[in-house]
Amino acid sequence: MQSDIQSDRNFWSVIPAGGAGTRLWPLSRAEKPKFLLPLLGERSLLQQTVDRLTPFSPLERTIIVAGPAHADEIARQVPDLPTENIVIEPSPKGTAPAIGLAAILIHERDPDAVMASFAADHAVQNLEAFGAAIRSAQLAASEGWLTTIGLTPTRPETGYGYIERTEAIASTNTPVPVYVASRFTEKPDFELAEAFISSGRFVWNASMFFWSVDRFIEELAIHQPSLFESLSAIAGAWRSADRADVLQREWSSIESMTVDQGLMEKVSGFAVVPAEMGWSDVGDWHGLGELLEKDDHENSIRAESIVEDVSNSVVYSTTDRLVALIGIDGLVVIDTPDALLLIPRDRSQEVRSIVDQLRESNDDRT
Amino acid sequence: MQSDIQSDRNFWSVIPAGGAGTRLWPLSRAEKPKFLLPLLGERSLLQQTVDRLTPFSPLERTIIVAGPAHADEIARQVPDLPTENIVIEPSPKGTAPAIGLAAILIHERDPDAVMASFAADHAVQNLEAFGAAIRSAQLAASEGWLTTIGLTPTRPETGYGYIERTEAIASTNTPVPVYVASRFTEKPDFELAEAFISSGRFVWNASMFFWSVDRFIEELAIHQPSLFESLSAIAGAWRSADRADVLQREWSSIESMTVDQGLMEKVSGFAVVPAEMGWSDVGDWHGLGELLEKDDHENSIRAESIVEDVSNSVVYSTTDRLVALIGIDGLVVIDTPDALLLIPRDRSQEVRSIVDQLRESNDDRT
Repeated sequence: MQSDIQSDRNFWSVIPAGGAGTRLWPLSRAEKPKFLLPLLGERSLLQQTVDRLTPFSPLERTIIVAGPAHADEIARQVPDLPTENIVIEPSPKGTAPAIGLAAILIHERDPDAVMASFAADHAVQNLEAFGAAIRSAQLAASEGWLTTIGLTPTRPETGYGYIERTEAIASTNTPVPVYVASRFTEKPDFELAEAFISSGRFVWNASMFFWSVDRFIEELAIHQPSLFESLSAIAGAWRSADRADVLQREWSSIESMTVDQGLMEKVSGFAVVPAEMGWSDVGDWHGLGELLEKDDHENSIRAESIVEDVSNSVVYSTTDRLVALIGIDGLVVIDTPDALLLIPRDRSQEVRSIVDQLRESNDDRT
Repeated sequence: MQSDIQSDRNFWSVIPAGGAGTRLWPLSRAEKPKFLLPLLGERSLLQQTVDRLTPFSPLERTIIVAGPAHADEIARQVPDLPTENIVIEPSPKGTAPAIGLAAILIHERDPDAVMASFAADHAVQNLEAFGAAIRSAQLAASEGWLTTIGLTPTRPETGYGYIERTEAIASTNTPVPVYVASRFTEKPDFELAEAFISSGRFVWNASMFFWSVDRFIEELAIHQPSLFESLSAIAGAWRSADRADVLQREWSSIESMTVDQGLMEKVSGFAVVPAEMGWSDVGDWHGLGELLEKDDHENSIRAESIVEDVSNSVVYSTTDRLVALIGIDGLVVIDTPDALLLIPRDRSQEVRSIVDQLRESNDDRT
């Protein structure tokens, strides 16, 4: 399927792996967050992300930006990744500092680089559509566009950002069409989201950004000069004995910021590649349930189980216990060695409040 | 409270401990059934039963009849019980053979004995009422009556047996009145159960039977001659080297039978002592929940837990896991090291079908 895809020798992938995945507690924990977990098969979400990208950028051109607590596990899970390609951020500051630092470090190694960023913990089911979108966005980026892949919306989701596309970019000979984007709208209300969807012109922003590193650094220097300065100072000390000191000092002064809001919403124009690739942010237990195989009663069960009169439920166990359920509908049941979670599927988002409570009481089961 | 109760030196207690308590799975297991579990406090239901009875019959006059798999644990839980007072039945055959064998063995040790039988796995909350009923039933029994304690019904339960009382027995000077009973009705339908309750004349049969051993043996010989013969043969060999052989041979030929149906329903007349003693057969998780302390939302929780918007639920854990629940109503959640059960509280009885399935597949978690 991917045999006709040419790997561009200047194309780099950056994977900011900073998210905790709080809503997937009790499986997702501070020391082993969502992206390190094999939620959808034998390999972790990070490994699946890397697997999707290596046909386009081999591991020598893959950078993972992560916290110090996760570096060892990342190296274990992606053993062929060069050590220097794991960039450790002292603390989470959002995607703009993480991706910005990676961009400046890439630029030193490959001034002609075109790079793209991908979340470490999302799922993509249609790899053919994914590949076509990547090649298209990569081409647009290499022609100078700040480019993003936009997902075809499947529901009037109010938790995502939307991007409006306008006319197609005529000059680029891409596998799928690339459009000029007109604006971001972050988390619209339900009515607006419905209007966006029925218009047919809006796509979801999944923070898959493509650009030439040159162009990105230029824009960063213009729109976030303070961040640019800090990152340049860090990059300048990267191969010296001062790296740790400079990194610690500069990083602590950096303001938390996403690439979306810190940069993309400020630039004068960018391109978008609409794609229908079976994407999911695996954002909560309901969403994970949608991605797992279902039985005849719409149950997604990953556990040794006995079920009678059970429907629309998500049952996930990482223990070898027997889970016996009778007369249950629309429930999420998550069974781990030290914590058990029960919550109605349509309240999956509220898992966060449990984690908040545990953190407040300094419980180490977060 | 019990200081005014005189222990009658001929009064014996027999505790047939044969029930499995299948409906309390996954806590109750074949190798550790309900009566051996500390379901309502620090001590097991059997220990609590013994504790209730020792003011009336000390351990030297307490007989526990149980299966071979449970003898060691019973000896551990009731360390001061004389070894010869644990009577081991080779297989469960119902209460008639168990109580019958105990009666014949008691008769040999104490021909003037009055004995009473008590289930090993029931709960009694009002010990004062329990004591008054015991003393009354014991007196009636010592005057020759086959006597039973009847529980004041609290709901039109269709799973129990009912006993109708008629006129009071005038001759007996008892702490509470004793009545002549007219008939047993086993498991009436709902309408009949409601009629029984509104009549005010019916009580529940909880198989608490009192009689002089003499009289009981007479009745057993009349109504169950074959059982009587087998039990006499066993008792005859009890203190000989042949005990094991005779017991094995005779026991295998014995028909399963309860005292209620095999004897009490056949005798020409018996007495009943109505009592309101906060009795429960702890029959299922709903019933156990009723006996545990409840929070402001009618939840009975015995687990380290975080609950939000949870009501009318029973949460019971024997692990040290955190149980987190959001948005749950009327659910039973039982958490054990090797099995987890979720079932609506009003379907608690159906737990049995899970155990049936496990047994069919020779799963050892029963």
